[in-house]
Amino acid sequence: MAEKIAFIGLGNMGAPMANNLIEAGYALTVFDLVQEALEDAVAAGAQRADSAAAAAADVDVVISMLPAGRHVEDLYLGSGGLLEAVDQTTLLIDSSTIDAETSRRVASAAGKRGVAMLDAPVSGGVNGAKAGGLTFMVGGVAEHVERARPLFDVMGKVAFHAGAAGAGQVAKMCNNMLLGILMTGTSEAINLAVANGLDPAVVSDIMKNASGGNWALNVYNPYPGVMDNAPASHGYKPGFGVDLMLKDLGLAMDSSLKNGVATPLGSMARSLYAVHSRAGHGGDDFSSIINLLKGCPSD
Amino acid sequence: MAEKIAFIGLGNMGAPMANNLIEAGYALTVFDLVQEALEDAVAAGAQRADSAAAAAADVDVVISMLPAGRHVEDLYLGSGGLLEAVDQTTLLIDSSTIDAETSRRVASAAGKRGVAMLDAPVSGGVNGAKAGGLTFMVGGVAEHVERARPLFDVMGKVAFHAGAAGAGQVAKMCNNMLLGILMTGTSEAINLAVANGLDPAVVSDIMKNASGGNWALNVYNPYPGVMDNAPASHGYKPGFGVDLMLKDLGLAMDSSLKNGVATPLGSMARSLYAVHSRAGHGGDDFSSIINLLKGCPSD
Amino acid sequence: MAEKIAFIGLGNMGAPMANNLIEAGYALTVFDLVQEALEDAVAAGAQRADSAAAAAADVDVVISMLPAGRHVEDLYLGSGGLLEAVDQTTLLIDSSTIDAETSRRVASAAGKRGVAMLDAPVSGGVNGAKAGGLTFMVGGVAEHVERARPLFDVMGKVAFHAGAAGAGQVAKMCNNMLLGILMTGTSEAINLAVANGLDPAVVSDIMKNASGGNWALNVYNPYPGVMDNAPASHGYKPGFGVDLMLKDLGLAMDSSLKNGVATPLGSMARSLYAVHSRAGHGGDDFSSIINLLKGCPSD
Amino acid sequence: MAEKIAFIGLGNMGAPMANNLIEAGYALTVFDLVQEALEDAVAAGAQRADSAAAAAADVDVVISMLPAGRHVEDLYLGSGGLLEAVDQTTLLIDSSTIDAETSRRVASAAGKRGVAMLDAPVSGGVNGAKAGGLTFMVGGVAEHVERARPLFDVMGKVAFHAGAAGAGQVAKMCNNMLLGILMTGTSEAINLAVANGLDPAVVSDIMKNASGGNWALNVYNPYPGVMDNAPASHGYKPGFGVDLMLKDLGLAMDSSLKNGVATPLGSMARSLYAVHSRAGHGGDDFSSIINLLKGCPSD
Repeated sequence: MAEKIAFIGLGNMGAPMANNLIEAGYALTVFDLVQEALEDAVAAGAQRADSAAAAAADVDVVISMLPAGRHVEDLYLGSGGLLEAVDQTTLLIDSSTIDAETSRRVASAAGKRGVAMLDAPVSGGVNGAKAGGLTFMVGGVAEHVERARPLFDVMGKVAFHAGAAGAGQVAKMCNNMLLGILMTGTSEAINLAVANGLDPAVVSDIMKNASGGNWALNVYNPYPGVMDNAPASHGYKPGFGVDLMLKDLGLAMDSSLKNGVATPLGSMARSLYAVHSRAGHGGDDFSSIINLLKGCPSD
Repeated sequence: MAEKIAFIGLGNMGAPMANNLIEAGYALTVFDLVQEALEDAVAAGAQRADSAAAAAADVDVVISMLPAGRHVEDLYLGSGGLLEAVDQTTLLIDSSTIDAETSRRVASAAGKRGVAMLDAPVSGGVNGAKAGGLTFMVGGVAEHVERARPLFDVMGKVAFHAGAAGAGQVAKMCNNMLLGILMTGTSEAINLAVANGLDPAVVSDIMKNASGGNWALNVYNPYPGVMDNAPASHGYKPGFGVDLMLKDLGLAMDSSLKNGVATPLGSMARSLYAVHSRAGHGGDDFSSIINLLKGCPSD
Repeated sequence: MAEKIAFIGLGNMGAPMANNLIEAGYALTVFDLVQEALEDAVAAGAQRADSAAAAAADVDVVISMLPAGRHVEDLYLGSGGLLEAVDQTTLLIDSSTIDAETSRRVASAAGKRGVAMLDAPVSGGVNGAKAGGLTFMVGGVAEHVERARPLFDVMGKVAFHAGAAGAGQVAKMCNNMLLGILMTGTSEAINLAVANGLDPAVVSDIMKNASGGNWALNVYNPYPGVMDNAPASHGYKPGFGVDLMLKDLGLAMDSSLKNGVATPLGSMARSLYAVHSRAGHGGDDFSSIINLLKGCPSD
Repeated sequence: MAEKIAFIGLGNMGAPMANNLIEAGYALTVFDLVQEALEDAVAAGAQRADSAAAAAADVDVVISMLPAGRHVEDLYLGSGGLLEAVDQTTLLIDSSTIDAETSRRVASAAGKRGVAMLDAPVSGGVNGAKAGGLTFMVGGVAEHVERARPLFDVMGKVAFHAGAAGAGQVAKMCNNMLLGILMTGTSEAINLAVANGLDPAVVSDIMKNASGGNWALNVYNPYPGVMDNAPASHGYKPGFGVDLMLKDLGLAMDSSLKNGVATPLGSMARSLYAVHSRAGHGGDDFSSIINLLKGCPSD
């Protein structure tokens, strides 16, 4: 029999994830501070609760999707928090993208009460959430990951077990730092080719099939007109915004400082995205970094 | 009937390329300044010539594979150079990796004499050359590219027409700058994950399947033990050496200066490879850049 | 009448600072966990105490000089900490170099008890401490700074009031980030001149008198042989070590992340110092960064 | 008796330099392609010539001040160039800022004809030129430098002998690369302090007196309102423009590539100035780079 689920946090990402679970036949109790979000979920078939604790009472699984570490900490560890409300058979899944330290601290507190918890941040964006095409990167105990896998399969196309508690956050942070580097480097390479008279579509095609191939180049080309469905061909309407990339690069830089690892390209990408955001492009798609780097006529 | 070919330059790359043409049934006349290289080619079935001009007399195609722009300029434009020796039906193919300006200058001089010329640098390294698995990036007139395609098919697995004369060099330069960025960025991401306690193979597998996927991560992992056949698992024996990457990054930086394009990650990658080379690793595989960036215990 | 002082922390910096106060006629009670340090101070004329709290009882001023933020927090805020031991007329001066947040938190706790506190980190190193030539950068209330000024004058040559609590730490952090940039940039400029055949002393002299003039160039030249008394002329024996610079750059990067400021050159300098430390140079003088950047013969 | 001088190139810099020589009593024959510039010089007391060669006939000294290397090469080495027009007692002084290679090539050609030549680029900008306050960085033979010194003393406040032919250009290139780093680094440090609540004037004063002291901070503060006479306090009206700094950083990067020296901070500064120029600030003062780096509210 399908499990009963509490879903906390019905924002741009949470709402479509919850909808996909409802459509797959799961019984959902939902909570969010925004009334309109609650009403939409009820219209889709969910049951509303008056608080997160009320939503989590008497369910098999809690899924949370919140903006930042402090919200996650409040939800689970605050006074009247979920750790006091749920019983020991409940599985907690936090899909928020936050720093690994907070994930580990909350999971550790859950563990002390005998409650299983996973950190399971996603990539794929709003479109991936709507289409059930997310990628989950999961930290926690293997058997708990397996228990959650049917839910991940409904909301996403693949779920990776990255390691112990917090490892999901680390995997996403490293992946997205690399993505920021890929997008910036791809932009530099295409700009340089165009400045030398090459057709951006032709050089992109060559590099895709050579050792320059990478996700940004292959499926998300930053040069306008090369790919019809890429944000670059639609005025850099996101997609994945500059300020979200800046947040992820900040998480990675923070971890690189704490761990004493040199990440020169990651640092540089963060500086460039910070400059680009400050210039007013925080809401544009992150592939618009190519415009910051384009040829300079006065050079 | 198979064309008669002159092959000039039988180094680490040129020799196996020539051998593959011989094995495919082409009649080759060869020249190199190194006697031993000539003798090896003769043993493989080539006919030796006493000079480049002698080799190029009375053939259908000339292929050259030389270390630097000044050698290419000497070969074709020097006194007694090939442009004076060949007749107008001969097709010239220069596969050396050099700056685009020199390629354009030589092709232009050839054009003035009515001789067709292509710049066709390769990627794939010595192993690719031996296995006939090279990628050709070709600049020149489309019909000349098509005439040369059967030869590219013997020596490589694919040939891309990048644009007019010099465009092959530009495509390779941009691709390899991007490759240097991919390798350095991938190294940073894996180092950061490992410093956070993740298994390098697990996080690599996750990023390959997410938006961090790129050539360096997918087929040339820089972390020891993740891929059996990668140089990282064999003491960083090249493969593609640090100093070759440094040369290619230098060509890209030079072009970025001349064209007024900002390439901050490319510049940074070049600085890091220069530092790595100076520390004594010029002959190691270029994936060894990960060691320069690894966690610093005293940080 | 001269004030009675408790001095906590008699390390490489604290010991000579305490000695200068003793020589100036102040009555010092001292505490350190290392017995030998205590004995040396007693030999110099100090009175020893069995605990920090015992040292701080019945004095007019407490001065602390500790390695990291957690030590400062323990000393003042821990159970049995100084804030419980001192009376409201005592002035607290913490000269440790730590993050501004911790300084603000401790000063705030002191304020709630009605106790005046200053953060007063120093620059000038061990030699400056011995010679009474330190520079103090002070955060706190102006009248408290004036009360402490006679003590700063004994231990140092100048004391700047940077602003409210924590501002001393911020000023030092920004100054030292800039110093790391100055030393690295000066090294790049001299290396480039030498690679072009110029005499390092001649080009240094020219830049000092032109718009390239800066502290690293003017008084701490990183090229061997240019300045007799610089660490560069003595095998890069510190002076100010690579790992201390790395620590300060880390504090600055952490603050740049928290405040959303782009510090690309500071980030780059930190990456270079991390690489240099990892290569085994953590204990060398920070001017040895020039060796990391020197010309690369294989380039 | 005062020497007779030909002055070639009466632009923003050349015109006031020529005027200062006239006011000091030298007889000047002048040439420029712009008629208005010639007329102004005649009004100031110069004699006009119809060509550079005509100006240089029968003088003791030729001074040239031109925009780029190709102009200098044309002037001296072109057909009908000055090297054919002057006799062996004439001293040639080129004050243009160009690449060292061109300077060396022209000086070498002059030397073969027995004509003495100096490269003598300046720093100090238009204001320095007007006030006779330029700094000359001179390459060539020592006795020729001494012969020219009275002229340098009229046009500037100091002249440094940097070494053999071309060394003047190298010294200026290295100095200005360092200046670009100083300005960017100083901007980062002040921004970081302000983001932490410090007063920009206070932290600037502290760093000036500590180890952060440097030319940009000491006499050209990039933060508005700290120094009354700095461009930052006048809407970043130059002063020394962004595009001029970009040109000088480009010369330095080109040399760093040719000489295989790693200049990571110089490269980064060039990327940042290229981005700043492209964003429309090429004509602003180079201290406006601080705006590119300021705190980002959305970070």
